[in-house]
Amino acid sequence: MIYYSDYLQLDKVLDAQHPESDKHGAPAHEEMLFIITHQTFELWFKQVLFEVGSIIKLLDRDYVPESDVAVCHARLRRVNRIMELLCDQFSLIETMTPSEFMDFRAFLNPASGFQSMQWRILERTLGLAQDRRVLKHYTDALAEQHKQQLDAATAGPSLFDVVQRWLEKIPFMESGAYAFWDAYKTAVQNMLENDRREVRTLAETEHRDPSEALNQIDANERGFLALFDAGQYAELLQQGSRRMSQTATLAVLFISTYRQYPLLQLPYQFLDAVIELDKLVSLWRYRHTMMVSRMIGMRVGTGGSSGHEYLMRTTMQQRVFDDVTSLSSFLIPAHATPALPAEIADRLQFVNETR
Amino acid sequence: MIYYSDYLQLDKVLDAQHPESDKHGAPAHEEMLFIITHQTFELWFKQVLFEVGSIIKLLDRDYVPESDVAVCHARLRRVNRIMELLCDQFSLIETMTPSEFMDFRAFLNPASGFQSMQWRILERTLGLAQDRRVLKHYTDALAEQHKQQLDAATAGPSLFDVVQRWLEKIPFMESGAYAFWDAYKTAVQNMLENDRREVRTLAETEHRDPSEALNQIDANERGFLALFDAGQYAELLQQGSRRMSQTATLAVLFISTYRQYPLLQLPYQFLDAVIELDKLVSLWRYRHTMMVSRMIGMRVGTGGSSGHEYLMRTTMQQRVFDDVTSLSSFLIPAHATPALPAEIADRLQFVNETR
Amino acid sequence: MIYYSDYLQLDKVLDAQHPESDKHGAPAHEEMLFIITHQTFELWFKQVLFEVGSIIKLLDRDYVPESDVAVCHARLRRVNRIMELLCDQFSLIETMTPSEFMDFRAFLNPASGFQSMQWRILERTLGLAQDRRVLKHYTDALAEQHKQQLDAATAGPSLFDVVQRWLEKIPFMESGAYAFWDAYKTAVQNMLENDRREVRTLAETEHRDPSEALNQIDANERGFLALFDAGQYAELLQQGSRRMSQTATLAVLFISTYRQYPLLQLPYQFLDAVIELDKLVSLWRYRHTMMVSRMIGMRVGTGGSSGHEYLMRTTMQQRVFDDVTSLSSFLIPAHATPALPAEIADRLQFVNETR
Amino acid sequence: MIYYSDYLQLDKVLDAQHPESDKHGAPAHEEMLFIITHQTFELWFKQVLFEVGSIIKLLDRDYVPESDVAVCHARLRRVNRIMELLCDQFSLIETMTPSEFMDFRAFLNPASGFQSMQWRILERTLGLAQDRRVLKHYTDALAEQHKQQLDAATAGPSLFDVVQRWLEKIPFMESGAYAFWDAYKTAVQNMLENDRREVRTLAETEHRDPSEALNQIDANERGFLALFDAGQYAELLQQGSRRMSQTATLAVLFISTYRQYPLLQLPYQFLDAVIELDKLVSLWRYRHTMMVSRMIGMRVGTGGSSGHEYLMRTTMQQRVFDDVTSLSSFLIPAHATPALPAEIADRLQFVNETR
Repeated sequence: MIYYSDYLQLDKVLDAQHPESDKHGAPAHEEMLFIITHQTFELWFKQVLFEVGSIIKLLDRDYVPESDVAVCHARLRRVNRIMELLCDQFSLIETMTPSEFMDFRAFLNPASGFQSMQWRILERTLGLAQDRRVLKHYTDALAEQHKQQLDAATAGPSLFDVVQRWLEKIPFMESGAYAFWDAYKTAVQNMLENDRREVRTLAETEHRDPSEALNQIDANERGFLALFDAGQYAELLQQGSRRMSQTATLAVLFISTYRQYPLLQLPYQFLDAVIELDKLVSLWRYRHTMMVSRMIGMRVGTGGSSGHEYLMRTTMQQRVFDDVTSLSSFLIPAHATPALPAEIADRLQFVNETR
Repeated sequence: MIYYSDYLQLDKVLDAQHPESDKHGAPAHEEMLFIITHQTFELWFKQVLFEVGSIIKLLDRDYVPESDVAVCHARLRRVNRIMELLCDQFSLIETMTPSEFMDFRAFLNPASGFQSMQWRILERTLGLAQDRRVLKHYTDALAEQHKQQLDAATAGPSLFDVVQRWLEKIPFMESGAYAFWDAYKTAVQNMLENDRREVRTLAETEHRDPSEALNQIDANERGFLALFDAGQYAELLQQGSRRMSQTATLAVLFISTYRQYPLLQLPYQFLDAVIELDKLVSLWRYRHTMMVSRMIGMRVGTGGSSGHEYLMRTTMQQRVFDDVTSLSSFLIPAHATPALPAEIADRLQFVNETR
Repeated sequence: MIYYSDYLQLDKVLDAQHPESDKHGAPAHEEMLFIITHQTFELWFKQVLFEVGSIIKLLDRDYVPESDVAVCHARLRRVNRIMELLCDQFSLIETMTPSEFMDFRAFLNPASGFQSMQWRILERTLGLAQDRRVLKHYTDALAEQHKQQLDAATAGPSLFDVVQRWLEKIPFMESGAYAFWDAYKTAVQNMLENDRREVRTLAETEHRDPSEALNQIDANERGFLALFDAGQYAELLQQGSRRMSQTATLAVLFISTYRQYPLLQLPYQFLDAVIELDKLVSLWRYRHTMMVSRMIGMRVGTGGSSGHEYLMRTTMQQRVFDDVTSLSSFLIPAHATPALPAEIADRLQFVNETR
Repeated sequence: MIYYSDYLQLDKVLDAQHPESDKHGAPAHEEMLFIITHQTFELWFKQVLFEVGSIIKLLDRDYVPESDVAVCHARLRRVNRIMELLCDQFSLIETMTPSEFMDFRAFLNPASGFQSMQWRILERTLGLAQDRRVLKHYTDALAEQHKQQLDAATAGPSLFDVVQRWLEKIPFMESGAYAFWDAYKTAVQNMLENDRREVRTLAETEHRDPSEALNQIDANERGFLALFDAGQYAELLQQGSRRMSQTATLAVLFISTYRQYPLLQLPYQFLDAVIELDKLVSLWRYRHTMMVSRMIGMRVGTGGSSGHEYLMRTTMQQRVFDDVTSLSSFLIPAHATPALPAEIADRLQFVNETR
């Protein structure tokens, strides 16, 4: 027999709120909200780590059966719902005004959200590269013991690693692929040529200089062509302007283009959920940044660094799957899609349906 | 110096998730979600109790200054935001399917949401009358020790009590009130007469029997007139068809009608937030009921009672402030509102503005 | 060349807000909110009807390929997100207080939300049985022209119809099924026997009469056994206590039980989304009811019927897929699940994976 | 008599969805979602403009009575709820994948969200300075007729203008103010001195260079002292690093510091709602940017400019009320707050309560 409060260990969970302002004899009403908001964030981080960990485990194999992709997809959708809730949760902490926060802020020093071990573990678990961290300082701020804990918790492959590995193994692209990719390249180039035409027409109508827009299109074209050239691609990896391997990147384009084939539907939806997660992590950062800057303006964070600047830069730059997201630059409409060679098309059906 | 994880006591909070299915050697992936959802519910319940408790304390006095009403209003709005989030939180637990729940449900017996002490404390703190509990059984299900704990935690006045008390002391209604209420009664009766006319016209156009609708209008009228008759009102209280005292009830009508007068603005907004809270508690019950019936269908709850039936009845009936909500039956439009006697109107200005 | 405002026909859409209170020379500030809220509801209803219509079309065929189930699933998830937003949208209209509504309510007569043609079309399109309408009156309230419009718009099969049809055609259950269902029955009966044991133990501990709970368990058992008896099942259909055909109902049980087999994953997720939609429609009704009762209390609705009573009853009773939802009463945990005969199990793999 | 569909002009509103892909004979299922999402955005923009316009009108007077501040506050809270919903609404359009968008994107050229007249009107109505527009180009993109329409719609004062004007007239600060502000300055400088101490201690413990953080503190101090020096303040205005007048800025500090005084409660809550609106507009931009970059990657927007870059820069920089938000850098905790001279304190009570 097990009872509700024992099962949930409520004696521990509900006895973990002890406002510092009380201890200092200057009770600040809003500190309770501050504590409980952070605790629920941490509880949900645990859940997110639990789900993402299970997804990594399922994908980290030589062969990932179709049905496991469905499981990963369902769990990732759950993670995304949780992240949405966590973004909304900022609305609750923001019912505390900056003045109310000021009444207990001094007592917290140097406690700071910067020190959430689970959030850092989550960043690494998703695959945020160390060298993408905007400030090296960020890791320095951890105590030695915590650094070790962090390293231990993230010793295995990241979500980025296993998604890349899984993509690289998606078959179907080797045979007849040359002809297919040639047709694809032509379709993209036609599309970009069309973009150029429109930019020029519009610029003329509006008496405006089209060069900025045209340069952007040229850059896009170079970026696109580089996807097919092993040498150029290697350079992009080197420069850090792409992270994902060439094979995996082409697999994403392939899946997106032929997503309506039965065997690519779930992989496509799974990739879409991965992009969604990346967006939601970014949104969480953005809301966090907005909340911090509202609460303390330009003041130096309790953790000792200039919070606002740092946070804003990370929000903008630290995407894990921007490689995948950015490929939407090179998608082509259904009507321009080259037909697949029959030998490949056949293999994208469920065999039980082709009989 | 205090550190983030110590401040939040994360060693306790994040070490309180121990799935029963693991202990039984049959790990069910979704049990972690089940545990963490319930724990975050409990954490937020603690915050809601904290805020409502502080509001009760501010209102439980002979004289409640205007500025404290503003504080109560802001805190109640926070509580309402929390309740909204808690309603949304059901979307997370519902990413678990009934089949997935079935995989660990048997291990939980007899743990059940019925046993949340904080939810029961919240119900009583808001002012849910004992005799409104649909099943006596509900209290019986508590262990003796928990009953005492519950009684101790709710020994003071409820939110209903202090709101009623505060309403009864709102001045302005005694002098000249007779003339005012007479005009008000006439306005309401004109409005109901108009309702009758419309019902008849519409019924005629549509060849339909108007009697059901007309009976309802008659019942409304009787209910309205009883508000002004001490004897009839006492009877309504006796029957349980009204709960709030006659004086407090008339104060609500007064505040709603003259809400644009400076001194009534905040009280009006505060009352609106009270109604909103009542709605959100009901919405929480509704979502809870839907979630339970989805998970276990018509099966008997782990707590031992027929969950669905019970929950649905409570959802519908157990409102605390339905008295206040139901008064919208008797509101009158601005153009029909009787002018206030000057002596009262004057007192509803901020004095600093009347000079 | 097409411009934004022409594309969206904003000249029409943004010139469709003409408050009645303005026309009556008594401008009521909140009427604009009232109009725009209803218009956005209607726009989203159009989108929901568009998506559900496309799903019906995909399912209304003799053979529904696996890949179309994936499309239906994705679209239904979109519909569910829209319904969630629509439920939240009540929070916006509720920023209008009952008193503010009263200032223009009289001008609207007899316009009323009851008359939303699209909502009625949606109800029928989902498959709400005519005889489940709580008040016949509801349809009577429509003008003759609108009745015809409604009939025309809902002449085809409903979502309920095509889901049932699709379920009936799901193969795999015929051969070897006897042995399988026998094992399943035993598992459920063991589970119910266990429920009884627990109810008795708990009742004893708490000195409480277990008979109510035991009766419920007996009723569940009878309901369960009737699923397998053509005669008894026909009777349930007759009484209206079940709506879905026996074959379709057993298919749901089968899919839920063996959901981890590759070919059942998507059907399972699709069914889960159907239940979710049913819940969200119910939630929308509930929020609508709450909103109406807050605005007008017990007054007779502008449409001429007693709004609150009617709405509350429909909220509770008018589920379309309660058949499917209620089957969670009879789900069994993974460890009790009878193994599938190899001949069936094999056919639930993707053939390309079994080689 | 007025009927629902006539009242809402549904004949116009629901007949305004005509997908371009249909006209081109290549129906793309998702275009309906694209249209309806944009139309509901536009409808809600109309509502937001309606509310903000009414607030501007109430504040644009020599004397703004207390009770009108309450009305403005309630309406601004409504606007904020609408903006929250609009941010959530991106989740709906994002159920369309980039590939699905690609199927009809080419048909829309050059229609683009850039051309929403109402959004531009909203930006100006809130008070976004012309010179804060990141790209001049933005206005150039409008047709001449639309530019005139835009100018006409925003000829009056902006929300920024009237909030500033209202703040400048808040009394209480003139007499005895010297002594008060001196005490305030000392409190802030003590606080900053404390920040320095902590930064040094922490840097020492962690063997880290404190100079970046110390520089930030020095900059904060200079910014703070400049608030009190007319000459320096004029310079900040000149440079564009502050926008709001010195008097209004000091009024914000005053209100925040003494917010618990009865007469400052509502002004404080109103300011808080203004900051919240600024945040939500920024959040809307952010979500819009994320959505666009997901849909088209780095491609040139249909409106002809490089969408992503532009949008991201505007998201970050184009705040209207950052002046107010940034003042939280200089708030002081309750215990450090200098007492108000009695003559001022007295005037911050409701006179009816001081008797």
